[in-house]
Amino acid sequence: LIKRYDNTTPGDQPTLGIADGEFLTMKKQITPEEVRVVALAKLQLRHDMVLWDIGAGSGSISIEADFLLPHGRIFAVERNIEYIKFLRENLNRFHPRNVRVVEGEAPSCLEDLPDPDRVFIGGSGGNLWELLEAVDGRLPADGRVVLTAMTLDTLVASSDFFGNSGYLVDVTTLNVARTSSNTDYKVFEAHNPVYIIVATKAQD
Amino acid sequence: LIKRYDNTTPGDQPTLGIADGEFLTMKKQITPEEVRVVALAKLQLRHDMVLWDIGAGSGSISIEADFLLPHGRIFAVERNIEYIKFLRENLNRFHPRNVRVVEGEAPSCLEDLPDPDRVFIGGSGGNLWELLEAVDGRLPADGRVVLTAMTLDTLVASSDFFGNSGYLVDVTTLNVARTSSNTDYKVFEAHNPVYIIVATKAQD
Amino acid sequence: LIKRYDNTTPGDQPTLGIADGEFLTMKKQITPEEVRVVALAKLQLRHDMVLWDIGAGSGSISIEADFLLPHGRIFAVERNIEYIKFLRENLNRFHPRNVRVVEGEAPSCLEDLPDPDRVFIGGSGGNLWELLEAVDGRLPADGRVVLTAMTLDTLVASSDFFGNSGYLVDVTTLNVARTSSNTDYKVFEAHNPVYIIVATKAQD
Amino acid sequence: LIKRYDNTTPGDQPTLGIADGEFLTMKKQITPEEVRVVALAKLQLRHDMVLWDIGAGSGSISIEADFLLPHGRIFAVERNIEYIKFLRENLNRFHPRNVRVVEGEAPSCLEDLPDPDRVFIGGSGGNLWELLEAVDGRLPADGRVVLTAMTLDTLVASSDFFGNSGYLVDVTTLNVARTSSNTDYKVFEAHNPVYIIVATKAQD
Repeated sequence: LIKRYDNTTPGDQPTLGIADGEFLTMKKQITPEEVRVVALAKLQLRHDMVLWDIGAGSGSISIEADFLLPHGRIFAVERNIEYIKFLRENLNRFHPRNVRVVEGEAPSCLEDLPDPDRVFIGGSGGNLWELLEAVDGRLPADGRVVLTAMTLDTLVASSDFFGNSGYLVDVTTLNVARTSSNTDYKVFEAHNPVYIIVATKAQD
Repeated sequence: LIKRYDNTTPGDQPTLGIADGEFLTMKKQITPEEVRVVALAKLQLRHDMVLWDIGAGSGSISIEADFLLPHGRIFAVERNIEYIKFLRENLNRFHPRNVRVVEGEAPSCLEDLPDPDRVFIGGSGGNLWELLEAVDGRLPADGRVVLTAMTLDTLVASSDFFGNSGYLVDVTTLNVARTSSNTDYKVFEAHNPVYIIVATKAQD
Repeated sequence: LIKRYDNTTPGDQPTLGIADGEFLTMKKQITPEEVRVVALAKLQLRHDMVLWDIGAGSGSISIEADFLLPHGRIFAVERNIEYIKFLRENLNRFHPRNVRVVEGEAPSCLEDLPDPDRVFIGGSGGNLWELLEAVDGRLPADGRVVLTAMTLDTLVASSDFFGNSGYLVDVTTLNVARTSSNTDYKVFEAHNPVYIIVATKAQD
Repeated sequence: LIKRYDNTTPGDQPTLGIADGEFLTMKKQITPEEVRVVALAKLQLRHDMVLWDIGAGSGSISIEADFLLPHGRIFAVERNIEYIKFLRENLNRFHPRNVRVVEGEAPSCLEDLPDPDRVFIGGSGGNLWELLEAVDGRLPADGRVVLTAMTLDTLVASSDFFGNSGYLVDVTTLNVARTSSNTDYKVFEAHNPVYIIVATKAQD
């Protein structure tokens, strides 16, 4: 593993599509790569935007977004100390240029950050409504929030919030299954279905 | 529409995630954006690679790949005259820097192209086996082919070919459904399932 | 077609699994057979139960349920005159023994029916909440409601209702795609995803 | 558990839709109930048919088929001794009237059975091609085989066989995910996707 670190140069990693296994993380606690890139596409990032990555976990979204935001700024917000450890190791490994770690509890720790153009919310946490209110207070018109939900509760709460707050809301569901060349017995292994909520703030 | 053309500047379009509706194409004849970005991620493009986009259609893969290959070259291969018309219009609209159109029938028209590092095959066509043999003859070790299949026949033929030719083969199935904010009645509309075959050429 | 009618005898049709194409209905306005049988299985019908089939449409659930309820009673409730026409034609075709058509608007038309052991709700209609309250008022402990939802709104409203009314609630999502032997080109054609909400009334 | 046995009477179990947890089996080694009923529907059983259930496992297909074949005969074929133990316990529990256990290796153990009208193949085993040839030799015109596949290899081998042997072949893919009322945290848990191959023997 260490050897790999030493050899890593910017040209060694893909500009999109880092495999799940390349990130250091807690077992299985990572957004699968297929969901990650669809979420990134739904964010519709532009060169110089500000992205808040709330519930950044091991940092896979922030790290993949870095190449897509060459003149932008990315704030990887995470409160869990275990995750922050993995997040810092992954930043060290992939050395994105524009990612800054923000340790702390959202929404309070968002106060000092510059207003976002885009917000990704990967973790549901316990205070979703409060978080969405804080995000809504800082997001400009045409700003966009992308949220991934594994549970019906998160799907419902977020689509309710955005629907009542003047956003255009689309939901994409993704059912992904993969075979693995590592096993002879090529079963398709399913990931749990994910809901990707895309909310675009209307013009005033 | 014309007004939109005039206004388009590099900063106006996302670095990833152009919506399906932004491409000019024949009705519904486009790889859905979710499948497109997953295929791009599976290609694991690096800055300066050569990509063959075979069966380029209206060019959505080539155009989205352009930002991911800042020092690379992309060859959009297409034989259908109708598609070439849309392809050229889309190139004119999104003005990627590294995409070259190759009109003609694969595999014969591939002969004069530089060897690829990555190959995307979007259309099944009628001569898949012959095409895969030609691609295999030009692809270096560690090179990678990503193929999207809508039919069992294409899935089987391609996984047979790669399995028998010393490639590592993984298959991802993607079931995507979307609601649309354009309608009050939020039905999830399903796209047909797609198989994404990822074949990596083994070291000698 | 007429010849087929004449020939139909009880032994001619399967005891489960009537193909979609065998039912007379409005174009594509039928629960796909895969969803239909899963819904029937979730109902856990027993020999002598009373089933309300609300929003019976062309009657496919009632007709398939008939064999599963040899000593039971099935009430096919439908308000739409077009559907009632197809419903009656299908009853004439498959001649189930225990199905009775109830023309009218639910919940008011449910008043004179015997209390149900099982309720299937296939159509969302406009007055879902009111309907669920009426059903809840008549369903005994251990009774079960199965509801199919195509939209997020119906999914949310129904799982909210049952969650707040002391039911055990499980949700199954079904993504079905089929090839057809009628075409050489074997594309998997996807049906829109369906949510099957299963709500079991708790003991007092 | 024993108490439950004692109390079980024919009216206590549903005529369709026995929950997975009701069958005694090896951990997770059971066809999920949603797949089971779709397979049963695809079999299009009629009152007095002969069904071979090859790779019967813990017997869930045979047991659920029993009610659908009131005047028929079901042969539950299994070679694995562990499974046969669970199969016999489940027969004892649900006491179907028409199921007979056939211990042994298919296809050789099929020789003494009466010709089937319907064949269900749940286990892939090692000798699929030989098995399909034996089944084909015994199945009359209009007979039907339903096979569930978890792997690409089984899907391909079986659709190849039937396609080359004069059968009409349809394939249905099923992606099922379920929430559970047992947990507060309502994640949709996915089952691995299943392919249901339906092959109908053509008239001569």
